Amino acid sequence: MTKINKNKPLEGILVLEFCQYLSGPSAGLRLADLGARVIKIENPGKGDLCRILPIKDQWVEENTLLFHTINRNKESYTANLKSEGELAEIKKLISKADVMLHNFRPGVMEKLGLDFQQAKMCNSEIIFAEISGYGKEEPWAKKPGQDLLLQAMSGLMYASGDREDAPTPFGLAIGDILCGAQVVQAVLAALVYRKRKNKAVKIEVSLLESLIDFQFEIFTTYFTSGKLPVRSAVNNAHPLLGAPYGIYETHDGHIALAMISLKDLKETLGSTELDEFDQSMVFSKRDKIKSVLVEILKKENSAFWMKKLQANGLWAADLKNWEQLKNSEGYKKLQLEQEIKFSEEKTIKTNRCPIRIDGEVMWGEIPAPNLGEHSKAIKREFELNEELL
Amino acid sequence: MTKINKNKPLEGILVLEFCQYLSGPSAGLRLADLGARVIKIENPGKGDLCRILPIKDQWVEENTLLFHTINRNKESYTANLKSEGELAEIKKLISKADVMLHNFRPGVMEKLGLDFQQAKMCNSEIIFAEISGYGKEEPWAKKPGQDLLLQAMSGLMYASGDREDAPTPFGLAIGDILCGAQVVQAVLAALVYRKRKNKAVKIEVSLLESLIDFQFEIFTTYFTSGKLPVRSAVNNAHPLLGAPYGIYETHDGHIALAMISLKDLKETLGSTELDEFDQSMVFSKRDKIKSVLVEILKKENSAFWMKKLQANGLWAADLKNWEQLKNSEGYKKLQLEQEIKFSEEKTIKTNRCPIRIDGEVMWGEIPAPNLGEHSKAIKREFELNEELL
Repeated sequence: MTKINKNKPLEGILVLEFCQYLSGPSAGLRLADLGARVIKIENPGKGDLCRILPIKDQWVEENTLLFHTINRNKESYTANLKSEGELAEIKKLISKADVMLHNFRPGVMEKLGLDFQQAKMCNSEIIFAEISGYGKEEPWAKKPGQDLLLQAMSGLMYASGDREDAPTPFGLAIGDILCGAQVVQAVLAALVYRKRKNKAVKIEVSLLESLIDFQFEIFTTYFTSGKLPVRSAVNNAHPLLGAPYGIYETHDGHIALAMISLKDLKETLGSTELDEFDQSMVFSKRDKIKSVLVEILKKENSAFWMKKLQANGLWAADLKNWEQLKNSEGYKKLQLEQEIKFSEEKTIKTNRCPIRIDGEVMWGEIPAPNLGEHSKAIKREFELNEELL
Repeated sequence: MTKINKNKPLEGILVLEFCQYLSGPSAGLRLADLGARVIKIENPGKGDLCRILPIKDQWVEENTLLFHTINRNKESYTANLKSEGELAEIKKLISKADVMLHNFRPGVMEKLGLDFQQAKMCNSEIIFAEISGYGKEEPWAKKPGQDLLLQAMSGLMYASGDREDAPTPFGLAIGDILCGAQVVQAVLAALVYRKRKNKAVKIEVSLLESLIDFQFEIFTTYFTSGKLPVRSAVNNAHPLLGAPYGIYETHDGHIALAMISLKDLKETLGSTELDEFDQSMVFSKRDKIKSVLVEILKKENSAFWMKKLQANGLWAADLKNWEQLKNSEGYKKLQLEQEIKFSEEKTIKTNRCPIRIDGEVMWGEIPAPNLGEHSKAIKREFELNEELL
């Protein structure tokens, strides 16, 4: 049984998503999960290229698993935007929409005749949001806006890993996800604004700006001190934080230690090896303190240390991998999984939207559309030219 | 000269922020940057504990640099929420507010008499948003909701680093930032909804749910295949992606290679060592292909490889650290820095909001407030009891 919530907050909002891959579609997904109607406008040939971008070679019928996960709860309408006739129909759709979202490279929408100025002529209250890799200014505007490349350009790879390690990427598409989240924020702020001002609004966010925003602590510290933050040589978990902040190996696993004062640590571990250090040294002697902790903590099992740390109310955690998490009682209580049913035979399980509203989990169990699946119905509904199908 | 934008989209929206540290205040900051008026409600003793949480020992007068960065553009009102008289004044403020935001541990707001039910009695259209570490259900509800501990519980530490590395944390407070971003999304969606429905809305997000949402590709793949994703042994940059995706050492630095087909790579590198591999092996022989690339790429400088890769339009980037980024022309064009002036003598530089609206950067150059700085003015404006100051 597909779970559907009533009264989602964005019900009645129509979003046209001219997007591919991850950043734009992740924004569309959140808007859809919050109740908006999201129509993907896709090229009739291949559509969103994420349909064929394999993540670990997992496919669901003709589309990749990644595509399904990030495009559930949406409709698909195909149009050749280079055809004058089809473009005219798209403009009719724009005239009925609340939001347009695109992540083409700078210049593409202008060339198609679907930039903000054109969109405003179709709809004087359109909210027009665009995602780029690096903004619209040279010399970077035309560079490929791909997550790993942006991480590489943004300095982020010097935040994770230890000092002597190679630059260490975040192992997920952090730029895409943050940028998508910010576009949603801006679109919704513009919807609030539009209700009061009755005007069109243009929104721009770039992956690079999103990644720099994410590193605000690093940049502000660097601007203020003039010195580049440095990863700790031992068990780095944040280049700006002092000992003991990090992940430590125990005899049978790993534990995380967050902000814990040296005094509390000394008392809890009941060891004298830390006696030569005090709280004023947690930055200046960061690596030495951590090295001592490494030696102490590896002697006993995680459960042994966790019992002591928790008894004193200190900020520590026993590490879990995805399987251990999934099998935890706390995880099950959160109802984090939902089933998406494609047919009687084919179901996938994925995460739900992380937001609860009025105590209800926001479910979104409608499968991602096949390419052009809703073209005909949308043409009928909006009285578009059906001969162009 | 302090830069201020006119017509920010959330102008006229009043937010009361009952928050400390990073997740809640980062949500308040984004709302403030988008034009809302954000009043921090703080304990008269110490206030937001972030005021004294040092990041790399950097302070600006009596507050930490981190506090300043994440609380610019806000006001501070102090109240002892355990005093009946002061609580009554807070309830008057709630009756005038649009949004309440808190990140106390579950049960605290209930005990204070400021939970959703109580808030609704003061204001039938209040948007009440709460951030927790793990939701409100046992056995995890009472655990400390700190970023590194949540990363440890969420499986995220098995995404970065190489297969034989220890679990590798993301070197920044990713859970706090994602959760804060989602709260902003939900609050704004609720504002859109409220305009139509005239009712109060309750929003809940937890750090754990945010971090699991962030790993949707990992979890969906795991749910579907039943197999745990594994980091590549060589130059991992995403456990679900095949070769060559990763960071490679060159003779004088590092370059990032994103999705590039083996055929294109072979042609571009002009080497025969990859001849035994084809595109169907990029997952199954991921480590072998990457190992061959490691040997090839370290022989020449980054510029040599980048020239070849770019000539063929392939997805590659030369790594930059924060200093190299800051000195780039492309960075300067984005106008990413803003100055916050505390006094004639004291200025700090920090990042601006990453969103542009109607072509304008959103500046937010008003410094973070001292504890209780605006109490008196707010009492006067909202006709609260000034004797309680």
